[in-house]
Amino acid sequence: MYIKKQRLLTPGPTPLLPRALHAMMASDVHHRTQDFQKIYRQVLADLKEVYGTTNDVLPLVSSGSGAMEAAISNLFRRGDKVIVCTAGKFGERWVSMTKAFGLNAVVLESPYGDVVTAARVDEALAANPDARGVFVQASETSTGAAHDVQGMAAAVKKSNAILVIDAITGLGTMPLDIDGWGLDVVIGGSQKAFMIPPGLGFLSVSPKAWEMAKTCDLPHFYFDLKKELKSAQGGESSWTPAVSLIISLGEALKYIKELGMNKLIANAQMLAQATRVAATSIGLELFSPGSPSSSVTAIKAPAGMDSGVIVKGFRNDFGMIIANGQGSMKGQIFRIAHLGYFDFADLFSMVGALELILSANGYPVQFGKGVAAVQQIYADAAYQKEAVVAG
Amino acid sequence: MYIKKQRLLTPGPTPLLPRALHAMMASDVHHRTQDFQKIYRQVLADLKEVYGTTNDVLPLVSSGSGAMEAAISNLFRRGDKVIVCTAGKFGERWVSMTKAFGLNAVVLESPYGDVVTAARVDEALAANPDARGVFVQASETSTGAAHDVQGMAAAVKKSNAILVIDAITGLGTMPLDIDGWGLDVVIGGSQKAFMIPPGLGFLSVSPKAWEMAKTCDLPHFYFDLKKELKSAQGGESSWTPAVSLIISLGEALKYIKELGMNKLIANAQMLAQATRVAATSIGLELFSPGSPSSSVTAIKAPAGMDSGVIVKGFRNDFGMIIANGQGSMKGQIFRIAHLGYFDFADLFSMVGALELILSANGYPVQFGKGVAAVQQIYADAAYQKEAVVAG
Repeated sequence: MYIKKQRLLTPGPTPLLPRALHAMMASDVHHRTQDFQKIYRQVLADLKEVYGTTNDVLPLVSSGSGAMEAAISNLFRRGDKVIVCTAGKFGERWVSMTKAFGLNAVVLESPYGDVVTAARVDEALAANPDARGVFVQASETSTGAAHDVQGMAAAVKKSNAILVIDAITGLGTMPLDIDGWGLDVVIGGSQKAFMIPPGLGFLSVSPKAWEMAKTCDLPHFYFDLKKELKSAQGGESSWTPAVSLIISLGEALKYIKELGMNKLIANAQMLAQATRVAATSIGLELFSPGSPSSSVTAIKAPAGMDSGVIVKGFRNDFGMIIANGQGSMKGQIFRIAHLGYFDFADLFSMVGALELILSANGYPVQFGKGVAAVQQIYADAAYQKEAVVAG
Repeated sequence: MYIKKQRLLTPGPTPLLPRALHAMMASDVHHRTQDFQKIYRQVLADLKEVYGTTNDVLPLVSSGSGAMEAAISNLFRRGDKVIVCTAGKFGERWVSMTKAFGLNAVVLESPYGDVVTAARVDEALAANPDARGVFVQASETSTGAAHDVQGMAAAVKKSNAILVIDAITGLGTMPLDIDGWGLDVVIGGSQKAFMIPPGLGFLSVSPKAWEMAKTCDLPHFYFDLKKELKSAQGGESSWTPAVSLIISLGEALKYIKELGMNKLIANAQMLAQATRVAATSIGLELFSPGSPSSSVTAIKAPAGMDSGVIVKGFRNDFGMIIANGQGSMKGQIFRIAHLGYFDFADLFSMVGALELILSANGYPVQFGKGVAAVQQIYADAAYQKEAVVAG
């Protein structure tokens, strides 16, 4: 056990797609040339195709949080009433951000591990007919719970509000029918299911959202979506683009198109399902069993064991980086990611390591039991038949 | 199972050390500059340290086979009697090569999967006191068998012959005490335990071998070890060096020094042991059980199953590249590598995949059984105690 390869099993940054990583070597190109315009136009077109929408999709040189801010500062007015769903650390970020920009936030809160239901959003909109926006996470990365954005969209559609979705870990891990369901703003980030390093944020903007932009009175300059749209129509970005990341994104989008966005999602869903079955098969409890996300699975540490011990075991014994709980969940849960460039072989490794770490820390585990649960799910899906089992 | 990462599990090329791969980006340096000389001198010193010898160690721009040829064409005379040990495809390469250069080869053959013993070499030297060389593989890559080069060296030491060892997959997977045992020529290759791409061959040359070089009459020009030694003493290579590979090698050697060559070897030995135990635990037979190499494990396909089915299953179902048997062993065996940049997590993946592939092809396997065998070996070695086993 002297060699330990570093393996990222975190919900962003995620493992890099090798061809997207290698493509960054071709970054010595000037961004105001026809050569780069050609690359940029292709990325814009492919991003739209992968998002699966006729809405405009714009990349920004920022983290996902920057794109979240852009949605607020470009679409709302000071004092606007908005409904903010929160069931974790990223929901709390929506609360803080909307307040920072002087919006009047009606907060719909659920406990960590739970979700805000579409029915509650429907009621809140009925009680607040003047609400101009609903904010939510498609996948709440801190708890591994997924929101019913389709149900919420149905409620929002009937109102004057727009639905603003932080889909940073939702994109590529769950179906998001932007046009069909009416998802007004859908926010993504490069270091998630897009399989490239951090540094780019994305957002799709619906006609209803563009309409709201017309009356926006919040100050913004760097994040200027109308300006960015106009630049994009000319095959350019408003400010200096992150050339290496755009080139890398181009390769990743090509890969996703070849694979199929639906298969990228199905891949994450299968790995998430297998992880849940593996965890419960060795007696562990899921943190968000009611509405589990396929981007990341949050698992409770066994009673009496700090989840930090498990995180540390992964790192020290196997070179694997997994996520602890955030905030009050720290020490209680650990999180395993499935979004982007992960495969079943990664899962055999992860579960094999998990069983060893738990066992070394006094939690009884029958070696191979969780791995076998993952193998069974693979066999059922891939070989379309019951696996042969023998002593 | 839509995403399948490509994973090399072959006995060369082996998985690249990431920092050695990334270092190749700094290849735009001219080879006849002080900057490169500094790099080259460091590589020469580190190569010697990693080889663990006071003998000269020279890199060549060639595959390992080029370094094998250099040993013949620089040290022998036409018609020289030599003893050639062969127990596989690479032993046969020594036979062909020595014959191609007009040497008089006394061939000591053993069946594939077996080895040539040191006792036979001792007897052959006694029967052929005029023999000037003994050729052998430290690890016969085609069968996964390891030769007793220490025992052979003891026999050769008493004779006028030199011991020429193809250690291309032996280096970094088994102890080779070059100075202590008296290993005259030890040949390596970059794409093996050195964890970088193919393109460099290495050889260490003992004083006894240099003495023989004085009377060499075989034609050679590109592979000129005396010229190469003189160049190396000046911090240069005789011909244009493979700059990117030398720079990459520099990073890999740093890594090996930090890890410790003994730990690199122990790592391969543990993975090889765990692979053997996993294979036999699910009822498979080893091809070379008597003297197994730690560089690669050759496993027999179950009765009635072509090993090509297993190789294809690894590739198509999991993106993993493993080796089939070579020559007459094709279809009979499959081979899993351990040399260089491999860890236990790789093994959990490989065994998990193997169990699924065997099962899908009608061979009864209890999922997780082989993985559990690997986990137990890890637990015993890493946690120094019996693992807790529970239902």
